[in-house]
Amino acid sequence: MAFLRNTWYVAARSGEVGRQCLARKILGEPVMLYRTAAGQPVALLDRCPHRLLPLSMGTLQGDAIECGYHGLTFDSTGQCIRAPGQERVPLGTAVRVYPVAEHMGMVWIWPGDPALADRSKLFDQLPQWANARGPNPQWALLEGPLTYVKSNYLLLSENLVDPAHVVYVHKRSLGSPAMANIPIETSQQGDTLLVSRWTPNAPASPILQRYGKWAGNVDRWQYYWMYPPHIAVVDFGAGLPGMDRSNAGRDAAIRLFTAHFMTPETATTTHYFWFVLRNFALGDRAVASDLIEQVTMTFMEDKAILEAIEDAEVEPFVTSRVKLAVDAGSVRLRHTVEQMISEEEALRTSGRTRAAVT
Amino acid sequence: MAFLRNTWYVAARSGEVGRQCLARKILGEPVMLYRTAAGQPVALLDRCPHRLLPLSMGTLQGDAIECGYHGLTFDSTGQCIRAPGQERVPLGTAVRVYPVAEHMGMVWIWPGDPALADRSKLFDQLPQWANARGPNPQWALLEGPLTYVKSNYLLLSENLVDPAHVVYVHKRSLGSPAMANIPIETSQQGDTLLVSRWTPNAPASPILQRYGKWAGNVDRWQYYWMYPPHIAVVDFGAGLPGMDRSNAGRDAAIRLFTAHFMTPETATTTHYFWFVLRNFALGDRAVASDLIEQVTMTFMEDKAILEAIEDAEVEPFVTSRVKLAVDAGSVRLRHTVEQMISEEEALRTSGRTRAAVT
Amino acid sequence: MAFLRNTWYVAARSGEVGRQCLARKILGEPVMLYRTAAGQPVALLDRCPHRLLPLSMGTLQGDAIECGYHGLTFDSTGQCIRAPGQERVPLGTAVRVYPVAEHMGMVWIWPGDPALADRSKLFDQLPQWANARGPNPQWALLEGPLTYVKSNYLLLSENLVDPAHVVYVHKRSLGSPAMANIPIETSQQGDTLLVSRWTPNAPASPILQRYGKWAGNVDRWQYYWMYPPHIAVVDFGAGLPGMDRSNAGRDAAIRLFTAHFMTPETATTTHYFWFVLRNFALGDRAVASDLIEQVTMTFMEDKAILEAIEDAEVEPFVTSRVKLAVDAGSVRLRHTVEQMISEEEALRTSGRTRAAVT
Repeated sequence: MAFLRNTWYVAARSGEVGRQCLARKILGEPVMLYRTAAGQPVALLDRCPHRLLPLSMGTLQGDAIECGYHGLTFDSTGQCIRAPGQERVPLGTAVRVYPVAEHMGMVWIWPGDPALADRSKLFDQLPQWANARGPNPQWALLEGPLTYVKSNYLLLSENLVDPAHVVYVHKRSLGSPAMANIPIETSQQGDTLLVSRWTPNAPASPILQRYGKWAGNVDRWQYYWMYPPHIAVVDFGAGLPGMDRSNAGRDAAIRLFTAHFMTPETATTTHYFWFVLRNFALGDRAVASDLIEQVTMTFMEDKAILEAIEDAEVEPFVTSRVKLAVDAGSVRLRHTVEQMISEEEALRTSGRTRAAVT
Repeated sequence: MAFLRNTWYVAARSGEVGRQCLARKILGEPVMLYRTAAGQPVALLDRCPHRLLPLSMGTLQGDAIECGYHGLTFDSTGQCIRAPGQERVPLGTAVRVYPVAEHMGMVWIWPGDPALADRSKLFDQLPQWANARGPNPQWALLEGPLTYVKSNYLLLSENLVDPAHVVYVHKRSLGSPAMANIPIETSQQGDTLLVSRWTPNAPASPILQRYGKWAGNVDRWQYYWMYPPHIAVVDFGAGLPGMDRSNAGRDAAIRLFTAHFMTPETATTTHYFWFVLRNFALGDRAVASDLIEQVTMTFMEDKAILEAIEDAEVEPFVTSRVKLAVDAGSVRLRHTVEQMISEEEALRTSGRTRAAVT
Repeated sequence: MAFLRNTWYVAARSGEVGRQCLARKILGEPVMLYRTAAGQPVALLDRCPHRLLPLSMGTLQGDAIECGYHGLTFDSTGQCIRAPGQERVPLGTAVRVYPVAEHMGMVWIWPGDPALADRSKLFDQLPQWANARGPNPQWALLEGPLTYVKSNYLLLSENLVDPAHVVYVHKRSLGSPAMANIPIETSQQGDTLLVSRWTPNAPASPILQRYGKWAGNVDRWQYYWMYPPHIAVVDFGAGLPGMDRSNAGRDAAIRLFTAHFMTPETATTTHYFWFVLRNFALGDRAVASDLIEQVTMTFMEDKAILEAIEDAEVEPFVTSRVKLAVDAGSVRLRHTVEQMISEEEALRTSGRTRAAVT
């Protein structure tokens, strides 16, 4: 399976990367992450080119990594700077280094052409994250536990342009029967997809009702923003019927964002990083603890479904797959990802780059 | 590996199939079983044709099953009756349904051509089972625990036309040294095999002696009835030396039947359903509990042997296999099964059916 | 992967082989070991040629093994001597027997041509072992636990002609920074390799200091003797600076031998047998217990490294491997082993044997 390579992927939470080695497989490649004494994250291919020992089994010596077998030592640019037992390092001895960036509390790596790595391409569509970290926040941030999903990352992405599943998968939390037959709107701007639905004048879903405690019906929204192939933001919430549906109107209601970063470990497994932002009960620890529990439970419901599908895809037993109206987001997503990958492939072959063309 | 498809296989004990979904792989295919509100068992291919989620992860809605991902709903004939988010169900949306029958306390499925499924072909060679369930039973029934065997089902069938193994595998229960050199008689009528042996005037085997408590020697019988490829009944017991060897004579002695239903899960694993009938100590709970323990222990001895052979067959390390006189039953069994399967294959190819020919 | 076949491999510790069957895979083949009533070890292919059941699941009957399925019985030369249910054993029924020898407290098998098996080719380069078992020992013997390593055996052998790794892998026990840049001497006599290093006038390594308790610096030696492909002896120790470096001089200092016997289980796993001899604190149980713990901990450090390398070799991710000066021993070892194997192959093809040529 082909992955898009010239893009930033989350490799780890910032707090995971420190003065010890962290080994993590990304896009099928063994990567090792650490931080220099000055705090700069570093990502190297996790293989010593001498005997193939994972460098993550070695020892940090200042900002360099010393292999745990024979002491071959590489600096944070991947150059070999010491070969014990001989005076000179063999010419050209180096380990692959990945461009790396720290952003939104996470360490990102660029598995594609290093010449194209560009901090300006880092995901930056969620100003509420910075607000939550700022001095006078209107938003509170909750980081979910790092979630390991035994499915292809696109099954997760697909799930996140698919409001239709909520009624069936998340009965106890996000779903409410009223939604089931409300049509879903799908639109696309450049590569970005938006799939959305308003459910007017109906009971709130269980998770919203927990915090909104409305006496009667509400208007409820779901906006699924997808930045293919691997990042999604869901904007959802509820307010009194007839509420102002603008951004400001939603800010005045009970509103949440969930942000989702899917990093392929392999073609069939995914490192899933996510967090939640809310605009209510900002300093309330009981709400925070209850909310993260609710959302985690909800995502575990998705995980169970997607892992079962990943297993089933090995041998489908179904000769012709049914297509439904609710697949609009999925169809666009998969088509967009295929296009991005084949465009990348074409530009690599032609020696030019996407960046150079656009 | 080819399986015979146009025959009934036990899919589950009746008690396993109810108003929840039961997922079970049969002949390599994922099947899901449930029961309608009226009590009728249903077997469907365990895959939603939309995204391949196992239907068994969904929810029963009356007699229909609603997929756990997007709510696609199928009735008990496999027809799709609801597709949320759209008014009409896409034409032809259906899931494969297996012919199913309930019989002898078990739910059976027919994995072959549904047009050929015929209740009259259900196994019906053991009237003692119905007697045990009737008003004035002369027989008592004990169901063994569902046994999962990591070997091809034919290794189990082969084991059940093979009285010769009893002396070596079941030393502590069924075997007795006197048997070892008594010749085995093998005969065949149609597809049915009978392999049998009388061991006259010798000590009873440990398991029979437990219940018969004879002071001296006994005449002992073993009749192995095999209904290829996957059903066997063993008629065994003992009486005083010189006993009447007819059916009536055996009924007057200590007599047991074990019935064995081997359902391939895959080419290398088997769902093994079995029960025991006895004609002594009918209402005695202590005997019942002791007997089921003894027989279970005995079958676990077979399981250990057959699983080791399944493993060994992957890489035999033996260039030429030895054939023995005791293989007569096995040779006939394997030949019969091959013939049944190639006959089925030929009739499928020619567009005619075995039933149509005979 | 090809193995050298015409050589003795350790199959088990003597104490493991008794009047029960021991099953062990060696060079990818299933072997079963037992001892006759007279105490002679026997090694047979662990497969009954009838149905392939491992013979080790059978029962010893005197010096013969009775198969656990149908009682086919083989004597200690592998000949079938009984086939229950028939008067005569089918002509030529036999199981493969491996030449076997007991030596140095271990049972060895010869997986190659039995005609070439020769007790004079058993490893016999460590007279200290016999001394430790004799009446007036100057040496004390400690057997390590049987160690199962999930790597190819040559990664272990390679590790044992490689003093350079000690500084990095065994920091806490055998290593000392002073060694790191001392050149290593490599020589070869016939197939035998010697890789060695003296580290003069430096602090003792932690494990030696534990027992030597020197006030100041020491001269330290490491002699790695390798008998390809699978046996190694390490002679190491320390004495006062300027010590006599001869064999007698080393005997007068703190001296240890570790002996290593690598038996391939498969191409990626190894049965690793080892023991330690020391010339100090001979009757001291506390030293014995401390020493075996230290050495075991040290070898576990190697095991972790080698298993990680075995895993990494499946998909190297490194296009060009670096060669270092410290690889001299490894290069000679691998070259010698390749030569031995291709020589064996050539002689087998030509119908002659290595023994006949040399």
